[in-house]
Amino acid sequence: MYECSKERMDDKIKTFSGFGDTGKGGITRFSLSEEALAARSEFKKRMEAIGATVVTDDMANMYATIPGTEDLPAIISGSHLDSVRQGGNYDGVLGVLTAMEAAETIVLEKIPHKHPITVMVWTNEEGARFEPAMMSSGVICGKFDKAAMLASEAKDKKGYTFGEALKASGFMGEESNRLNPNKSKALVELHIEQGPVLENEKYDIGIVEGVCGMINYEFTLTGQAGHAGTTPMPYRKDALFAASKLIVHLHEEFDKLDSKLVYTTGKISCHPNIHTIIPDEIKFTLDARHQDPAVIKQVLDIIFALPETFEKCGLSYEKAWTRNTVSFTPGLVDYVEKSAQSLGYNSKRMYSGPGHDAQFVIDIIPATMIFVPSVGGHSHCELEFTPVEDCLKGANVLLNTLLLIDQE
Amino acid sequence: MYECSKERMDDKIKTFSGFGDTGKGGITRFSLSEEALAARSEFKKRMEAIGATVVTDDMANMYATIPGTEDLPAIISGSHLDSVRQGGNYDGVLGVLTAMEAAETIVLEKIPHKHPITVMVWTNEEGARFEPAMMSSGVICGKFDKAAMLASEAKDKKGYTFGEALKASGFMGEESNRLNPNKSKALVELHIEQGPVLENEKYDIGIVEGVCGMINYEFTLTGQAGHAGTTPMPYRKDALFAASKLIVHLHEEFDKLDSKLVYTTGKISCHPNIHTIIPDEIKFTLDARHQDPAVIKQVLDIIFALPETFEKCGLSYEKAWTRNTVSFTPGLVDYVEKSAQSLGYNSKRMYSGPGHDAQFVIDIIPATMIFVPSVGGHSHCELEFTPVEDCLKGANVLLNTLLLIDQE
Repeated sequence: MYECSKERMDDKIKTFSGFGDTGKGGITRFSLSEEALAARSEFKKRMEAIGATVVTDDMANMYATIPGTEDLPAIISGSHLDSVRQGGNYDGVLGVLTAMEAAETIVLEKIPHKHPITVMVWTNEEGARFEPAMMSSGVICGKFDKAAMLASEAKDKKGYTFGEALKASGFMGEESNRLNPNKSKALVELHIEQGPVLENEKYDIGIVEGVCGMINYEFTLTGQAGHAGTTPMPYRKDALFAASKLIVHLHEEFDKLDSKLVYTTGKISCHPNIHTIIPDEIKFTLDARHQDPAVIKQVLDIIFALPETFEKCGLSYEKAWTRNTVSFTPGLVDYVEKSAQSLGYNSKRMYSGPGHDAQFVIDIIPATMIFVPSVGGHSHCELEFTPVEDCLKGANVLLNTLLLIDQE
Repeated sequence: MYECSKERMDDKIKTFSGFGDTGKGGITRFSLSEEALAARSEFKKRMEAIGATVVTDDMANMYATIPGTEDLPAIISGSHLDSVRQGGNYDGVLGVLTAMEAAETIVLEKIPHKHPITVMVWTNEEGARFEPAMMSSGVICGKFDKAAMLASEAKDKKGYTFGEALKASGFMGEESNRLNPNKSKALVELHIEQGPVLENEKYDIGIVEGVCGMINYEFTLTGQAGHAGTTPMPYRKDALFAASKLIVHLHEEFDKLDSKLVYTTGKISCHPNIHTIIPDEIKFTLDARHQDPAVIKQVLDIIFALPETFEKCGLSYEKAWTRNTVSFTPGLVDYVEKSAQSLGYNSKRMYSGPGHDAQFVIDIIPATMIFVPSVGGHSHCELEFTPVEDCLKGANVLLNTLLLIDQE
């Protein structure tokens, strides 16, 4: 088994943590921002230093390729360098840094490989400044309309579009450089778990079999406003009491389904939200995720069975969005498992709850993912952390997976 | 029995509805605003036209007095002319207009009365621009410190104080003109119910025995944030789920208490309030009111018995404020009932949920209140409405109550 360098891994993490450093342990590095462009330049410089050829496509996705010994499609690995506001130093960037480290190990140790190895940087995965998330993989894999994406307006600067940021970046290249099924053998994306399971259950590596299907609904309960001091209880149509009962009811029903189901009400609004007024309208969200479409259907059946009137209040709901379960390429998933086992790491097969660029890529080329533990399950915040030892294990599994693919 | 004039009552309501008219059926007439000063001038003009002497005190409360045949303390009635933003044409102002109409009827019909009759206008009952509510009755009855009230800053204009508005109003008078136990026999305040009970149960008049005691608490549930897609259910400390269960639990417990208890969670906040994040902090209010302090104590016992950890989340609460039950003067309450019965009106003894100036006045002179129905229970909004026929019945009960007090 080949292994990457802990020192180099550590250096990469520390260096890239400087681009957009908040000074509080995290970064704010919106896609195509000055900080993100500095990170891209560092990526380019480092990849060219190990002999890679770096090109960009029309969405400014970056491809740094080291040649193989034969004229074959490339094996690709990478992730994104952009973050949410006050995000961490691991989400996305670790997938780029481990791919860089795998490539650097291959070059420095002269590890024989037939296929070219490409390290990728996706543009605007977070959608933190320009919506939506996974914008560029979405364009390239046919999920999003490019013109609509170019027109996406900055959240903080009216009239300023993603298209303008793209042109100004200096990283916009040719459409012909896009990730292409004819020139690509497979893609492997490493990412932090963003959850507490690997850490709590003491696994080194998550073997990602796919991305959970999900539904997101918004519920509305419509009651009647009234004065807190003058409206006897039997007269009331209290939308917040109804919402509370409904949230509890949904929990109780969903608890009866498969134990891997996760469901969350993360957002609630109350009108008029005054302590002396009975609320007349509550809206809340429901996010539910499971790898098995049959379980998601059970969730929907529970929603669809709800009455139109609940605790004397009108009850309605609306689908915000849904995502079908995505399954990664079984052969690639097996390579990840085999690599982890050969390296003597504890690994667990699992599904990803959050979305990742790889879930769009699987539509055009074989793909899979590798997870490393997230301390405390923290993600999208400055607390995000994965010890360098765990990052290195991830890089080692990635390196050996790429080499297994190469040997096919 | 004496009766007021429906035509005059109607004219008064229509005229005063013009001061601060929103054009949508209601008024915005903050205390001491231009619109409120115009209403005060109209009040002064009309009261002087029926022979009243009008004075103001140091809080700009107005006293319009028609003399009695003997040198006795005054019998007082009135309420306030100020409103909340986009309030209605009945809350407060109807107590002034019915007192004006009662006085006008006494004058025009030359009804014999020994005591002077004073029609009052309280300054800043709503506290809508300058907090707190019931500011001037609070100062005069020793509840609030005058200097602190004068320093109360306008909500919409930094640095502009109630004291400055008072000076600029032209209605500030002498402290010696204040409502005074030595010169006052009793106070009767008519008000709209602000609730649906009288209308729904088909009563003309509410005989107000007192003002409910109340408690207001803020609850905080502290959980742990986590990603909606990555945190298995058993790992979660979901503050919104805990809050929902707690709201339902409190409802179930309070439902076992006296049926006149009212309790409301009107305000809720959620952090971080993002659909894909498990909430880590929920705050919600609890307002509970009942006329019997023993029932309020039962409510508090239920709160105090709550555990420190609820559904895996930290649970804490804080008293925002409380109000003891206020009982009005029994003899005066009986006069209201007797007047309503003599006039052939259906009446119901009840407690007020909301606070009113009269609840402070009772500390210094005998006092009571009369309620008239609120259509749909609407209050503090442009929908606020009481048909003129019901206003007239209120005025008639007020007139005869004042005359009964006079005959004591």
